[in-house]
Amino acid sequence: MTTTTPAVPDRQRHVEDELVRTVLASFHNTPDARLKELMQGLVRHLHAFIREVRLTEAEWQQAIDFLTATGHITTDRRQEFVLLSDVLGASMQTINVNHEATAGATEATVVGPFFVEGSPEIAPGGDMAAGAPGEPCWVEGTVTDTDGNPVPGARLEVWEADEDGLYDVQHDDGHLAARAHLYTDDQGAYAFWGLTPTPYPIPHDGPVGTLLDKTARSPLRASHLHFMAASPGLRTLVTHIFVEGDSLLGSDAVFGVKESLVKRFERQPAGTPAPDGRDLSGRSWSRVRFDIVLAPQRT
Amino acid sequence: MTTTTPAVPDRQRHVEDELVRTVLASFHNTPDARLKELMQGLVRHLHAFIREVRLTEAEWQQAIDFLTATGHITTDRRQEFVLLSDVLGASMQTINVNHEATAGATEATVVGPFFVEGSPEIAPGGDMAAGAPGEPCWVEGTVTDTDGNPVPGARLEVWEADEDGLYDVQHDDGHLAARAHLYTDDQGAYAFWGLTPTPYPIPHDGPVGTLLDKTARSPLRASHLHFMAASPGLRTLVTHIFVEGDSLLGSDAVFGVKESLVKRFERQPAGTPAPDGRDLSGRSWSRVRFDIVLAPQRT
Ligand SMILES: [Fe+2]
Ligand SMILES: [Fe+2]
Repeated sequence: MTTTTPAVPDRQRHVEDELVRTVLASFHNTPDARLKELMQGLVRHLHAFIREVRLTEAEWQQAIDFLTATGHITTDRRQEFVLLSDVLGASMQTINVNHEATAGATEATVVGPFFVEGSPEIAPGGDMAAGAPGEPCWVEGTVTDTDGNPVPGARLEVWEADEDGLYDVQHDDGHLAARAHLYTDDQGAYAFWGLTPTPYPIPHDGPVGTLLDKTARSPLRASHLHFMAASPGLRTLVTHIFVEGDSLLGSDAVFGVKESLVKRFERQPAGTPAPDGRDLSGRSWSRVRFDIVLAPQRT
Repeated sequence: MTTTTPAVPDRQRHVEDELVRTVLASFHNTPDARLKELMQGLVRHLHAFIREVRLTEAEWQQAIDFLTATGHITTDRRQEFVLLSDVLGASMQTINVNHEATAGATEATVVGPFFVEGSPEIAPGGDMAAGAPGEPCWVEGTVTDTDGNPVPGARLEVWEADEDGLYDVQHDDGHLAARAHLYTDDQGAYAFWGLTPTPYPIPHDGPVGTLLDKTARSPLRASHLHFMAASPGLRTLVTHIFVEGDSLLGSDAVFGVKESLVKRFERQPAGTPAPDGRDLSGRSWSRVRFDIVLAPQRT
């Protein structure tokens, strides 16, 4: 992590330092102390970046043009700034900062752009795929607190892409599929049918896609299944589980992978009986276990 | 310039460090070496900012919303991202980095959003105001190189706001005024009539205006007159001159003021004869001298 700051003559360094001081001072009277801290922190790091890389005027103009294009492609249905934050790891770092590793609790990862309110409820053991194409996957586990107590009645939201790499909300017809919520039982256990996760690209036909292309990065996300787990008195957890052996685990476009979230999805050959007796019409299926541990509410 | 990094437990710091390393590594194969340097520098400083201020998820969302609003107000005629860069001092720091103080040469400052191509040419001693309202101001000086040689035929672009604080391009009727170009004579001298500069606010009815408001900052720019000076073989200079005694010199909204660019505008009471015999119809006027020294072309 070496930097390549060129030698800057003293007189020049003084001019640059002086500007940083002046800009910091301009925020001195900000009434809200936290906003002041944020703005002064931003100014320090932004100026340090410009000075360290010796940003050229042409590069500054390219940055302005990039932000402008990012703003213009952003709509109610497409958030290119979130995508930009994602591919720079800024979203994931924000998650890290706000969900400090709590001993024993399941780790958090990015929400992603495809969570929506209003998912249908399914009964225990129900099928959240709702007709979305893909290989069936039996998902089961428990929700406990960090003392090991089961959490009955915890609400689980689950959502994922279909085998074509698309979420329901990326289709234009407004139907919901591969998205549901359910509750843990009296023992804090849950189970449902979903789809074996498959990789999909983040939207890459905009400025962020161009950036990935120019930096020889892939837009693909490692295969995953999203979870949100909530219960009164415990910290709400937003996370995914990833597929052990997925070749994309080391190059997830949004840096969402954490080792503790990589799970073994056991492939079941066609004809293997399902745990709940479901008729799988002779197809292969998979199964995975994900035991969720919720941290205490922040005080 | 103390920072307020809260104590972060070792295990947590390790998680955050590891993410930074992973994001930096994702840019490792960028074909263009300079783009790689820029992206890795951006990642280091962006992550350092998020970690230092312990950015909350709500603050991250506010940042996304702010950038989105900034993108949506930006059009061909209004560049809110440039304004944002300006009020954070990023534009001025970029100018600093690219125009290192050269012994003896006139200092550069920001271009600002109001330069346009296609200004009318005026003859030596001509009036660039072209009917724009304001007090007449006689501007004169020379253009030389850093060895003191006069630069004949140097092209000077000059532009400024009228006394209502508006540039011609902010009117909707498309006429050009208080904007012109002229050339130095055989001795490298120039002179023209302009307007005594007055303060004006940067556009502050958008997200950047809201930011200034919340941070108790003024949108006003210190009074100034813009210059661009160019001659083959010498470095093109973009700068302003400011008015000695202006109360806004210490709080210019875009940090464009440099001490060496503050000039004495001598007020001339009504009735004082003009240097070129112009009939000023009994009005007061002012005069200023600005000798421009152009640095050698970069090698
Ligand atoms: Fe996803
Ligand atoms: Fe201006």
